[in-house]
Amino acid sequence: MKIVIVGASGTIGKKVTEALRGENEIITAGSKSGDVQVDITSSESIEAFYKQIGSFDSLVSVTGSAHFGPLNTMTAKDFDSGLQNKLLGQVNLVLIGQHYINPKGSFTLTSGILADDPIVLGANLSAVNAALNAFAMAAAIELENGIRINTVSAGVVEDSPGYFPYFPGHIPIEMSKVANAYYKSVFGALTGQTIKVW
Amino acid sequence: MKIVIVGASGTIGKKVTEALRGENEIITAGSKSGDVQVDITSSESIEAFYKQIGSFDSLVSVTGSAHFGPLNTMTAKDFDSGLQNKLLGQVNLVLIGQHYINPKGSFTLTSGILADDPIVLGANLSAVNAALNAFAMAAAIELENGIRINTVSAGVVEDSPGYFPYFPGHIPIEMSKVANAYYKSVFGALTGQTIKVW
Repeated sequence: MKIVIVGASGTIGKKVTEALRGENEIITAGSKSGDVQVDITSSESIEAFYKQIGSFDSLVSVTGSAHFGPLNTMTAKDFDSGLQNKLLGQVNLVLIGQHYINPKGSFTLTSGILADDPIVLGANLSAVNAALNAFAMAAAIELENGIRINTVSAGVVEDSPGYFPYFPGHIPIEMSKVANAYYKSVFGALTGQTIKVW
Repeated sequence: MKIVIVGASGTIGKKVTEALRGENEIITAGSKSGDVQVDITSSESIEAFYKQIGSFDSLVSVTGSAHFGPLNTMTAKDFDSGLQNKLLGQVNLVLIGQHYINPKGSFTLTSGILADDPIVLGANLSAVNAALNAFAMAAAIELENGIRINTVSAGVVEDSPGYFPYFPGHIPIEMSKVANAYYKSVFGALTGQTIKVW
């Protein structure tokens, strides 16, 4: 199976890449690193990216930034930064990728626990993550040729201790459990689901 | 109570305005109609709007457009149109309005059933509506001075028969039930909730 991993060099991306490698052909991608570069905020860049990698079976996105900060100073521009990057960037990997992916292929996007369980400073991420989960649910009923789509929604992960203070009472998630969720999406048969890991 | 209703002339807005009027001071607003005009896609317009209406107790938003169309021809621009209008437009009414609303006031935004129950052509609306529900959930834990926020999420409403063919098997919702949900948000004590009407 030919699997493309966008964000392969990130904290989660590294572990997901290890878990998916097996006997599969892995293409790593990132904004600056990996086998192929792609800017997920640019439709032109995404088109060029898919043309470069050729047909593939699975696209795993473990990338995207959003705004993290207090509501009482948040501006429309702050909020839009997460909409344009983590949300629309990942959605556009699907909108364009649906025309390049092989039949019975799959898309796996990354949302996160804040869609369901909010924290202070996290209003933009709550909105972005929930939108990704709902997009996957809705896109699943329209994708053709047996193509599937899911999101993985993890809690704060054990390899990101810098975030722990912002998640009081949350239990950091083992990286192997997070990587398994991506494996489940790629090699299982689920579609339209949010695979929750917390 | 001084209640501002953005989108008061719309299908739902008209019924919500009737239901909330009672002995309250109602300010109707819209992009072209109502007592005051506001363009929800412009921070400058929203700032001018709040300065014009002065302090208030409740902001009810029953407005916002999104993209409705097939996934296999959807572009990033299509998807972004809903992010900029129904999602960011309503969020920005809160981001700016939090600095003008009276203590113990409330914001009530409009999402919709597609956040939970997708239909063909509705991927953008599913994402936008889910983002609004999650934003309200998250903003509720940061808003100060007892200010509340909820969304109302209705199914296809009986006064919009043109939409019925797109919602096979859905039972159109009575307008009085929809209007009651907004009444519940404004005059009740809920916060951070999605008030579902279906």
